[in-house]
Amino acid sequence: MKTLEWKNGRLYLLDQTRLPLHMETIECITYRDAAEAIKAMKVRGAPAIGVTAAYGIVLGVKENSGRDKEEFFKRLYHAADELKSTRPTAVNLFWAIDRMVRKAEENREKTIPDIQKILEREADNMAEEDFRINRKIGENGQVLLKGGEVILTHCNAGALATVDYGTALGVIRAAWENGKKVSVYADETRPYLQGARLTAWELMQSNIPVTLITDNMAGYFMKKGVVTAAIVGADRIAANGDTANKIGTYSVAVLARENNIPFYVAAPVSTLDFSIASGEEITIEERNEREVTFIGETRIAPEGVKVANPAFDVTPAKYITAIITEKGIVSPPYLENLKKMVSRSNV
Amino acid sequence: MKTLEWKNGRLYLLDQTRLPLHMETIECITYRDAAEAIKAMKVRGAPAIGVTAAYGIVLGVKENSGRDKEEFFKRLYHAADELKSTRPTAVNLFWAIDRMVRKAEENREKTIPDIQKILEREADNMAEEDFRINRKIGENGQVLLKGGEVILTHCNAGALATVDYGTALGVIRAAWENGKKVSVYADETRPYLQGARLTAWELMQSNIPVTLITDNMAGYFMKKGVVTAAIVGADRIAANGDTANKIGTYSVAVLARENNIPFYVAAPVSTLDFSIASGEEITIEERNEREVTFIGETRIAPEGVKVANPAFDVTPAKYITAIITEKGIVSPPYLENLKKMVSRSNV
Repeated sequence: MKTLEWKNGRLYLLDQTRLPLHMETIECITYRDAAEAIKAMKVRGAPAIGVTAAYGIVLGVKENSGRDKEEFFKRLYHAADELKSTRPTAVNLFWAIDRMVRKAEENREKTIPDIQKILEREADNMAEEDFRINRKIGENGQVLLKGGEVILTHCNAGALATVDYGTALGVIRAAWENGKKVSVYADETRPYLQGARLTAWELMQSNIPVTLITDNMAGYFMKKGVVTAAIVGADRIAANGDTANKIGTYSVAVLARENNIPFYVAAPVSTLDFSIASGEEITIEERNEREVTFIGETRIAPEGVKVANPAFDVTPAKYITAIITEKGIVSPPYLENLKKMVSRSNV
Repeated sequence: MKTLEWKNGRLYLLDQTRLPLHMETIECITYRDAAEAIKAMKVRGAPAIGVTAAYGIVLGVKENSGRDKEEFFKRLYHAADELKSTRPTAVNLFWAIDRMVRKAEENREKTIPDIQKILEREADNMAEEDFRINRKIGENGQVLLKGGEVILTHCNAGALATVDYGTALGVIRAAWENGKKVSVYADETRPYLQGARLTAWELMQSNIPVTLITDNMAGYFMKKGVVTAAIVGADRIAANGDTANKIGTYSVAVLARENNIPFYVAAPVSTLDFSIASGEEITIEERNEREVTFIGETRIAPEGVKVANPAFDVTPAKYITAIITEKGIVSPPYLENLKKMVSRSNV
């Protein structure tokens, strides 16, 4: 099982809206297919949508390459804009698209077929890097676990949120692969149920013990002393360490601190956004009401009810025990230490 | 619409598992029908199940009255035990059944038909009292609201959790009836979705503005300054003020305190259980896994996944700003002030 695969000039995505009951693959032929898949959350998770968008650019400049260079770039920018507009919160999306655009611009003097090839190679690199980075995040993060921990995780920051292996779940995998007997409590993560549908499934596939709970049970199991650590992913991290992640992450963090449980964020460096000073500046995506009022085809709320559906929240840095990246573990003060970490030589 | 109605020797319950899409009534002819309705949460909410159990006793001594007094009481105790075994957490259930049993015992010298009549009248009294008590809770509690508040509530402590009017929603209703412009954010309350299915519906029926959110959004709206107060019901309150209520209540309380938002519990005096010193002693009901893994007929989690499903949690007294009862508003220290309040003359 792979979250995404590039084959013969087409992008194949595992349709995550159908898991765990159905294992289906979507074929993306145009950049609009890729954009649509991101928007509809058929592919989700900050790193995975970054790589999907990169391949979306490759598709965009293939189908709409134009006759001359000017036309080629016009169409590239157009595809980039459309892909960027799919989800406003995850910074990896913008990071990945900007990297592709920059790559094209750096090679502006080359022929159109050459630029196309270069972009394809760049997207391949990003997919490979993603896997390598996740292994490194796991390797770095697993030292924080002694074994015996019961780890709460929220949403899915697993193999399914990345090209493979995962960030938060990557840390858990790495601990497990190092023989540390950890187990997981997975928040179901309403409204989209990524925890129930994806995290539980993914951990079961890997034989890592997992217990599924509803989001509002996390505090109960922390207070009871059952859950002893929390690890989540991130969609965007501000310069001061404030972290945007799936709605409900903030509550997990507050409850963890209240119960003296470490709360870790695991994410690639590409999730850092030094252009924003704090979480205050992060745009929170508001999604469709239907995600709240329906499950599958079952209506669970009265017709006409007013609904709010923010997809993310921001966890202030003060609740975060450490941020785990491929370049190491960062502790507070984040404003200083995140910059220091990034300026270290590449892994 | 009434949660329950006693007519011609039968108990009629609004089937709350079918709301809001279907308005259906269940007829209880035997005490086992009543027990089954409580167990299956066709009727729920501490005060409502108390009154249902009281009528269950009436049904129990009608159908199984026996030929002699000894037989009559044997069957009464049997029905009482079975009704008590339906849900372990709500103390009103035990309180109501014990009150019925005591009433029968006090009238042991009367004829069997007379005791039957007395019990029927006692259950009627309890139903009427419940409505009167809720009005009083509302009247007492609404002084805590100035108007303009956006009130988070969890689960359903409304008319549907009582015979009518509600406890937590009773306070909101009373404020509304006093011309105070309040509005409500309703947690959907997984796994059973009482917030989405019942609270949202009930408030819409009363034209009180309500916004439905998933449980994990509550913290977000508190931190954002949108939600400015929280009011919940209770299933059992220990002598020290520790409060058992629907799973997730504890998290709401912690998040409220973290955001300097008052957190109120509204409940009748019958919810107090001075026989237990603290919440540590409250048994937490563990319910069926299917409530978590299915919504309606839709499976939302992998087959074979391990699930935890505690139905309640305990909110330590330190998070509770005030407890609102029919005898007044009680502030900390609860150990002292709850006892003082109860010893006041009846309302």
